[in-house]
This record gives sequence, structure tokens and C-alpha cells, in this order.
Amino acid sequence: MQIAIVLYDRFTALDAIGPYEMLCRTPGAETVFVAERPGPVTNDQGTLTLVADKALAEVPRPDIVVVPGGPGQREQMTNEALLGWLRAADATSTWTTSVCTGSLLLGAAGLLQGRRATSHWLALDALATFGATPTGERVVVDGKVVTAAGVSSGIDMGLALVGKVAGNEFAQVVQLGTEYDPQPPYDAGSPQKAPAAIVDRIRSNGEAVIR
Amino acid sequence: MQIAIVLYDRFTALDAIGPYEMLCRTPGAETVFVAERPGPVTNDQGTLTLVADKALAEVPRPDIVVVPGGPGQREQMTNEALLGWLRAADATSTWTTSVCTGSLLLGAAGLLQGRRATSHWLALDALATFGATPTGERVVVDGKVVTAAGVSSGIDMGLALVGKVAGNEFAQVVQLGTEYDPQPPYDAGSPQKAPAAIVDRIRSNGEAVIR
Repeated sequence: MQIAIVLYDRFTALDAIGPYEMLCRTPGAETVFVAERPGPVTNDQGTLTLVADKALAEVPRPDIVVVPGGPGQREQMTNEALLGWLRAADATSTWTTSVCTGSLLLGAAGLLQGRRATSHWLALDALATFGATPTGERVVVDGKVVTAAGVSSGIDMGLALVGKVAGNEFAQVVQLGTEYDPQPPYDAGSPQKAPAAIVDRIRSNGEAVIR
Repeated sequence: MQIAIVLYDRFTALDAIGPYEMLCRTPGAETVFVAERPGPVTNDQGTLTLVADKALAEVPRPDIVVVPGGPGQREQMTNEALLGWLRAADATSTWTTSVCTGSLLLGAAGLLQGRRATSHWLALDALATFGATPTGERVVVDGKVVTAAGVSSGIDMGLALVGKVAGNEFAQVVQLGTEYDPQPPYDAGSPQKAPAAIVDRIRSNGEAVIR
């Protein structure tokens, strides 16, 4: 089983690493970071660089595709090298997945037509543009397409995927091994739970505040 | 404010990236990945490579130090280049922190003497070797030393630190921006919560199963 995690300039690091850390121990799985060109790829903050081991063209038929989000997603929305690869990979994948605004890339590739899907809460409405039905759930499974909400939700998605491909027992081994027993020190992780002033602050100035 | 995240061969990726993703948006902060030598550093799975931007020696006085864990921690326990740097950095830091078995490196550097501290649940007992009092809490703050439990706990620690250095309101902005409203699909994230068979499986074969 091959798991391809897509990188592009100005991706959000945790979008990629959250699902990676859950999935990378799956027995028999090969995990590979891919980008249009192999080599270093820098994140949205300009302070973290991950190495893409292979070019997209070198990984034509992954079993699982993971597409992270991040502000750099916008420039990729018309990048046919990536969108064409996503379409071709999806034709043979077992699971095609995204985190955060990565779902907008799946949408731009035409892969969300008629599907339920999610994204970062600020980007949910944009999903309808691609024929998808946005839902506010944290992880949405529609057929073989799995989309996750903002940034940290990729951990929950990754662990759910481990359960699907390696069974519930192994998924619990991964959860315990990574001590994934979250205890956030605040309760502001969704627009429904956060104080209105915090939601407004991000809505009115999302770019500057969260990126 | 300078935030130094330490890398070494065979670190665990989420140990480093969890706190990074929470801390990296702190106003006025410079976040830098450091290693004994700058350049690519590969994780415990051999499938993820992060780039260290600077050598330890180039970052002598960070305000916040973050030390991740991972199986490679063992080889670092006698690496005076790292341990000496940790001692010197701690002498002027505002916060000296670790995730997972990174706390054993703080211990080996002599920084946990007489302090309460935590680590990955499998490594808790080892803390006593360094004069620390192990506790099963997810994030332990003792003076300026903050230690977190296994792997994913670095996210909770990072968010708590953001609150300390940038205030509770900004920490909530980060939590909402990263949509950190965890909903794990299983409830096996601690040895107290996981089925006994899962705990036994990791205890008896931890290396092979979780690494």
C-alpha cells in the first residue's frame, strides 16, 4: 500500500504531518511525500521546510492520497500539473483525502461533484462552487473521498483511516502509541464554541491572524 | 522572541510539528529549527525529512526551547554537543520545554533535578533517574520547565505556551484558526483508557509496534 502526501509551496505543516503521523506506521504501507518537483518545500510561515522525496509523476497510482491545505492552495487551483495528477490518482486510489483547504483542490480537480465534504470553517461555503454539499462535521466520508476540517482535524481523519485500512485494534495501538488523548487548554476550537469576538477577529482578518 | 525547535536523527515528526504549529504564529516570534549541523534531518520512520535552518551554535540564547522525542533520543543521551547546548540555552531561556521522550534529554542535561515532569507513558519511570518526579499529567509546568506526554500532547503544550507568552485571547485565535476541536474516533489515548490488550501489546513490543 502506497500513501502519497502532497506538498506545495505555502502548505500548512500540521495539515500534512497530522495524518502522516497516524498513517505512517500502517503495516505494509510505504509513505511518500510528493510534489510537482522533488526537493525542499516551504510552508505558509516560511519557517519550516519539508523534503518531497518524489515528483508527482513518479507516484502515479497511490492507494491513499492526502492533500493538505494552506494559503498556497490558491495558486494551485489552476495548476493542471497537480489537478491532472489528482484526477488520475483518484481513478485508481482506495482513498482520496484532504485536510483543511486541501478539499478545494479536490473540488477544483472535479472530485467533489455530488459529494458531501468539509474544509476549514472559513472555506466551507466555497465547496458548493465545485458541486459539493458542505457539512460542518470534522471528518466527512463520502464513498472513497474523505475530507477533514481545519488543520488539526487531519489527525482525527488519519486515525479514522488507519482503522479502515488496518483495523480498529491497530488504530487504537497508534492512538495509544502517540498518546492521542487531547486535552486542549481552551475550548475555542470551532466557531460554535469560540467566543464571538474571537470568531469575528478571524473572519474580519483571517489572513493576518491565522496565517 | 526566538523559539528554537531542536531536531536530531530519528525524532518523531508530530512531537516537533505539534508545538511548532501552535507557536509559529506568535506575534513578534521568530521560529527556527536547529540541529547539531544545519541541513536535512530524517525522522524515526525514515520517510520524513525536515530541514534544520541553523546549527545549535548559531542559536545560543533562544527564549523558548522545544525538544521533541523519538527513538533517536537514545543516541543523544550522551551527546555533549546537544546536552551542553541545552544547559546553556536553559540558563537564559524563558521557557525550556519538551515533548515525549524529549524530557529524558532535558533530564540527561541535568535540567529536571527536583522538578515535576512528564514523558511518553512508556518512559515515565525513567524520569526518576534524573532526579525528577514523574507525573501522569499531559502537560506539566514546573517553574520555567514545561514537559508534555507522548507525541500528540505537544499540541496541548504548545497552545498552553501561546497563552503564556501571547495571552489567552491570542491562544484562542490560534485554536480556532487551527480548528483544534479534537474528536478522536477511538478512546484509547492513554493507558488508563485503552483496552488492556492494547496496552499490553505496546508494553511488550513497543519498539516494533509504535516505532
